[in-house]
Amino acid sequence: MSETTDKYSFGMIGLGTMGRNLLLNMGDHGVKGAGFDKDASKGQLLEQESKHGNLKGFSDVKAFTESLSSPKAIMMLVPAGKIVDDVIAELLPLLDKGDILIDGGNSHFTDTNRRVEELEAKGFHFFGMGISGGEEGARRGPSMMPGGDKDAYNVMKPILESIAAKVDGAPCVTYIGPGASGHFVKMVHNGIEYGIMQLIAETYEILKTGLKLDNEAIRKVFLKWNEGRLKSFLLEITKDIFAYKAPGTDHLLLDDIKDEAKAKGTGKWTSQVAMDLQAPIPTIDTAVSMRDLSKYKETRLEAAKVYSKVAPALDVNTDEFLKDLEQAYYFSMVITYAQGMFMLANASKEYNYDLHLGEIAKIWRGGCIIRSEFLNDIYNAYNGNAKLSHLLLDAGVEKLVSAALPGARKVISSVIAAGIAAPSYAASLSYFDNFRTGRMPSNLTQAQRDYFGAHTYELIGKEGTFHTQWVPKSND
Amino acid sequence: MSETTDKYSFGMIGLGTMGRNLLLNMGDHGVKGAGFDKDASKGQLLEQESKHGNLKGFSDVKAFTESLSSPKAIMMLVPAGKIVDDVIAELLPLLDKGDILIDGGNSHFTDTNRRVEELEAKGFHFFGMGISGGEEGARRGPSMMPGGDKDAYNVMKPILESIAAKVDGAPCVTYIGPGASGHFVKMVHNGIEYGIMQLIAETYEILKTGLKLDNEAIRKVFLKWNEGRLKSFLLEITKDIFAYKAPGTDHLLLDDIKDEAKAKGTGKWTSQVAMDLQAPIPTIDTAVSMRDLSKYKETRLEAAKVYSKVAPALDVNTDEFLKDLEQAYYFSMVITYAQGMFMLANASKEYNYDLHLGEIAKIWRGGCIIRSEFLNDIYNAYNGNAKLSHLLLDAGVEKLVSAALPGARKVISSVIAAGIAAPSYAASLSYFDNFRTGRMPSNLTQAQRDYFGAHTYELIGKEGTFHTQWVPKSND
Repeated sequence: MSETTDKYSFGMIGLGTMGRNLLLNMGDHGVKGAGFDKDASKGQLLEQESKHGNLKGFSDVKAFTESLSSPKAIMMLVPAGKIVDDVIAELLPLLDKGDILIDGGNSHFTDTNRRVEELEAKGFHFFGMGISGGEEGARRGPSMMPGGDKDAYNVMKPILESIAAKVDGAPCVTYIGPGASGHFVKMVHNGIEYGIMQLIAETYEILKTGLKLDNEAIRKVFLKWNEGRLKSFLLEITKDIFAYKAPGTDHLLLDDIKDEAKAKGTGKWTSQVAMDLQAPIPTIDTAVSMRDLSKYKETRLEAAKVYSKVAPALDVNTDEFLKDLEQAYYFSMVITYAQGMFMLANASKEYNYDLHLGEIAKIWRGGCIIRSEFLNDIYNAYNGNAKLSHLLLDAGVEKLVSAALPGARKVISSVIAAGIAAPSYAASLSYFDNFRTGRMPSNLTQAQRDYFGAHTYELIGKEGTFHTQWVPKSND
Repeated sequence: MSETTDKYSFGMIGLGTMGRNLLLNMGDHGVKGAGFDKDASKGQLLEQESKHGNLKGFSDVKAFTESLSSPKAIMMLVPAGKIVDDVIAELLPLLDKGDILIDGGNSHFTDTNRRVEELEAKGFHFFGMGISGGEEGARRGPSMMPGGDKDAYNVMKPILESIAAKVDGAPCVTYIGPGASGHFVKMVHNGIEYGIMQLIAETYEILKTGLKLDNEAIRKVFLKWNEGRLKSFLLEITKDIFAYKAPGTDHLLLDDIKDEAKAKGTGKWTSQVAMDLQAPIPTIDTAVSMRDLSKYKETRLEAAKVYSKVAPALDVNTDEFLKDLEQAYYFSMVITYAQGMFMLANASKEYNYDLHLGEIAKIWRGGCIIRSEFLNDIYNAYNGNAKLSHLLLDAGVEKLVSAALPGARKVISSVIAAGIAAPSYAASLSYFDNFRTGRMPSNLTQAQRDYFGAHTYELIGKEGTFHTQWVPKSND
């Protein structure tokens, strides 16, 4: 390799497709970027793919770090977990105080907390940055959620803004907040993604098993939806999937794919953390547990034999039902986003992230997997009222929800009556109906807890906690 | 205090109501027991309450441990968390190798794993023992779930069997398995408890808001249910609660209690761990998230104003509906237990617990919070076939479920149509309908994941994983 004369202004560790694509994206925007990968062929590939001659690959970590201008800004795109710690340990002796290290992977935010603490104590800046958009997003414009030291963010800001997706000219990146807030927000993004994907899967089931539509008719439903207010990246790719034939055949590839959903864990983390925060996200929880249930294929096949005929068929007018189904999907999608935003609001308080929910909605409008028309409504809601306690209480959103509700209620109750599994639809409506209950039946839960465990209860309009001996004690 | 001439055969640390009651229970069964509490008044209270003169209280830990026969068997009943570690650290210098330490609290099983490892390495036996039944159970006969070294269990066995609840003469205690298996099983017990409590709360909501029954009519429903196949501890206490007047008033205390449910965390742990195990328990997840939702009272009150009239009233024949509701409750209760047992089966494989699910059902039939008639059916199912892959696949259970299903379907779809929140009911039915789906729509989820993240998919009847470029790449 030849000596570089000028320094590179951004470094990337891990030159898989994501890392390479982000660098190529930077190169397109005039950023001189250096990439490191132990596998030298990856660096060569980077240089071959580079169209502007401003990207360079390294397989020697010292040469890589020495090629960077100061303060060094280095992003790691390596698998979450121990590998991140290993890379950090290898890098540290080669860095100077004030350098900026960015974890661009999907690390658990508690790991990021630990790393921020360790590295800030040593005088380095550590960023946890969520990146959404997949390989294509990385290449053409992702949505990015960086959290960490704000001054350090300003060093990277021009580069990040240049490569981010743009919506109406606004870049899909903003400073999220301190500490692990960037990875936290990305985690919740993925949780919402799980929820919406599950809603789409259930829609497929309703269309196929309930309405008995063939694949082409299903494709047309998704196509039409994606042309209206439901427009979103996930519906867009869904209609493509319903057009893709298995190579050399006349049927969809989709029909050949096993119905066992895998997961990388970010949806699970979202649900687990939501429970720690006591910020309920039941639509997302349901999506996680249904992915898990799909895994038990053999057990399900046995169950399908044992419980084969257990419900009457769905007896509806298809055209009318499809209109209602659009409402049901819209309604449940809104609920899913609302749950995610509520979780963020709670996390912001709990961890002092000072999140700007409007800005987060704004950078999710482009580049990322959950981008959709509806994010404009979310942006408007929080932009108009940063202290909005729940998205469903925004006047604009209320109108949309109330209008979609009758169709949602009809569809969800009728598919349940017809034995068609629509767990995330049902969870969304149940959440809504509990959310709008001024008086939940939880007083009974409290009475029971006090009865068997002396856990005490609170009284309306009285301070303090109370315990009652609900039945006479047995004689001692 | 006078010198003891004979040694005590069991020691208890922490003489709150639970610890004292367990010792009093032992005393009734001829066990010489020693209790330690830093607060000397607790030990005095123990001696006062003791009817047989065979219990002694200590406030000096050294005198306490020296009073015990060898090998010492000492149970801690202190709050979960750091306090357990503190007590262990204080005790260790006073113990001999081979002594047995029992954590009778609700510790997280991962903490118990760590303690088992640390203490076994030092030559001690450490037991994590779940105890259910509350204060009254501790005094009269709890259900106990001890996990740890089997030889050490045999030392304690006679004492534990003597104090346990009995069902048809059989004690509600058995050796659960190695390591933290006892605490794990108790955690899942509590998860099931959360699920069933939530079902009862939703039933209350349906009876009150849907059928517009008054409290006395609701009491009669629960009373009647508890006389039939639904007989269970939780329904028993519920009908008592519906008979308890606020002191000096003419109305139920229940009506004065705040509708904000609290939780100690074991339900949350169950859901979080189930997600790690990929063993779906959506009914229990829903119970956890609805307790959490109840916490946001002010937000709910606002929402109640905004979304006040959103559904038609429930228009049904009350007597017929009540019959269907009994089926719905039975069905959903069975699903809740089935989810818990399936989680245990998965944990048994994952952690090599070698759990005997039939024996676990057997010791849950008495003493514990989730005791119920139906546990006999669970016992019979696993006793007849220890390798049963899922409770719902047992022929006996299948008959019960299939018979209850039509009513369940009618009730759940109609309350959803009427805007009455029944999230755990809905989650139970959705789980069932997915469970009995030989072909879930998860193939679409996999196609989407491959489309945007190149996560690959599997094909029916082919080995390996595959990736597709679903649409042509944008030109570079």
